[in-house]
Amino acid sequence: MKLVRYGPAGQEKPGLIDDEGALRDLSGEVDDIAGEVISDAGLERLRALDPASLPKVAGNPRFGPCVGQVSKILCIGLNYSDHAAETGAEPPSEPIIFAKALSALCGPNDDVEMPRGSKALDWEVELAIIIGKRAKYVSEEEAMQHVAGFAIMNDVSERDFQTKRMGQWTKGKSHDTFGPLGPWLVTRDAVADPHNLDMHLDVNGERRQSGNTNTLIFNVPHVVSYLSQFMTLMPGDVISTGTPPGVGMGMKPPVYLKVGDVMELAIEGLGTQRQTVVAA
Amino acid sequence: MKLVRYGPAGQEKPGLIDDEGALRDLSGEVDDIAGEVISDAGLERLRALDPASLPKVAGNPRFGPCVGQVSKILCIGLNYSDHAAETGAEPPSEPIIFAKALSALCGPNDDVEMPRGSKALDWEVELAIIIGKRAKYVSEEEAMQHVAGFAIMNDVSERDFQTKRMGQWTKGKSHDTFGPLGPWLVTRDAVADPHNLDMHLDVNGERRQSGNTNTLIFNVPHVVSYLSQFMTLMPGDVISTGTPPGVGMGMKPPVYLKVGDVMELAIEGLGTQRQTVVAA
Repeated sequence: MKLVRYGPAGQEKPGLIDDEGALRDLSGEVDDIAGEVISDAGLERLRALDPASLPKVAGNPRFGPCVGQVSKILCIGLNYSDHAAETGAEPPSEPIIFAKALSALCGPNDDVEMPRGSKALDWEVELAIIIGKRAKYVSEEEAMQHVAGFAIMNDVSERDFQTKRMGQWTKGKSHDTFGPLGPWLVTRDAVADPHNLDMHLDVNGERRQSGNTNTLIFNVPHVVSYLSQFMTLMPGDVISTGTPPGVGMGMKPPVYLKVGDVMELAIEGLGTQRQTVVAA
Repeated sequence: MKLVRYGPAGQEKPGLIDDEGALRDLSGEVDDIAGEVISDAGLERLRALDPASLPKVAGNPRFGPCVGQVSKILCIGLNYSDHAAETGAEPPSEPIIFAKALSALCGPNDDVEMPRGSKALDWEVELAIIIGKRAKYVSEEEAMQHVAGFAIMNDVSERDFQTKRMGQWTKGKSHDTFGPLGPWLVTRDAVADPHNLDMHLDVNGERRQSGNTNTLIFNVPHVVSYLSQFMTLMPGDVISTGTPPGVGMGMKPPVYLKVGDVMELAIEGLGTQRQTVVAA
């Protein structure tokens, strides 16, 4: 099942993409794609609906972030063996965690702001896990039961803010619009193998990142279980699992985004994103 | 004005502490101490009420975190000159920011959990800023207009998780109950000088931390303005401004908390907190 939130920012309505790719309105059924709605029981209720019975939405509305009531955005650093090599870093011995501010969340095709004074704006296509059920001290075996589904996230980063402005990556990861999420929340039953998905990112039509989740160092159950040892994961929480090779920082010399640049991202089965860079 | 949220966790009601120290119920006036209610206009409306006209609350109910709808908890690292010296670190040239998970928020007197496997559970009494009005690219001169008020936060920390488990402090700062906040949100008009407040923290009745906000390296307007350059601050966001000397990690040898220990914290004019350490 492909779930979406559509409409103007802050007023998104719940929707569903049917088998023909048409957008259907779910607002007669649920308030939001959030909380109990993305629990196993909530998703079961949605699955029981006949999509043809739901109103078709006319036009091409904006998509918002594909999940609501998000209370955490956690990201895993250096989680692809080929990306770790590209940055010159040793592969980590356990997951590196950092947080992105919730105010950074935006729709998959919204403009991305270049912060004032930014000289090192970079891209990162990532597989995001959407939590569906509270998770505290869960084992790897139990972990997938706490996952509602998956989406694309662009973990937009300002490298100077991240690494040259006194420690802790949050500073370079949290500007408004640094978290495009979506277009769809693809429920976990609809993703045959989250550890074998092709992914790529283009800048102005040129391929920059190419990868596959089969080079993840720490896989989905490991990451969920690991995080749940340090903090409680709540329904709607987003875990962005790291990026494959090809970020601007890794190029020789580094290449960064400028105003007017267009990023296009895709992950197999999870749709596409497209963002234009604008001045903050 | 001293605003509070009281009642069982997750079901807190808004309240106010009157001049005699009695708890008065505000739930006939506002839904929560959050959002528009803590804007300048919202606080003005509450100030216009006669506290004696509000129902007195019987008994001694639990206090929750003193603000609702929190969307970020940002903390400033090494922000007291005397604490920086204690850790052996150079005073930072600009504020160090890290994030604490929202799931860590709890009431000022709630039990604090010792995570499984924890061997380095530590305390940090801190002055917390509560944002009352959206702030993006605000100057130091404008910054105080975006502050609703102040509260005490205990920035509870697991030092091994923070520093020995692969980078980024969020991992050691985010366990459930690592963010006792309150008891009161003291509005900024009621705090004569936030940069001259005595503060202390005792463990089992023994004084561990003593300090005054007059040794803050980066003061309140600087911190708010600085953060607003990197991300948008929203009403209800909490900024914990750093801790004075006397943390367990700084003792020689280090001394950490164990199950059954009691922390008691106070900041001049902002009330007191008391937490007992329990097993997770």
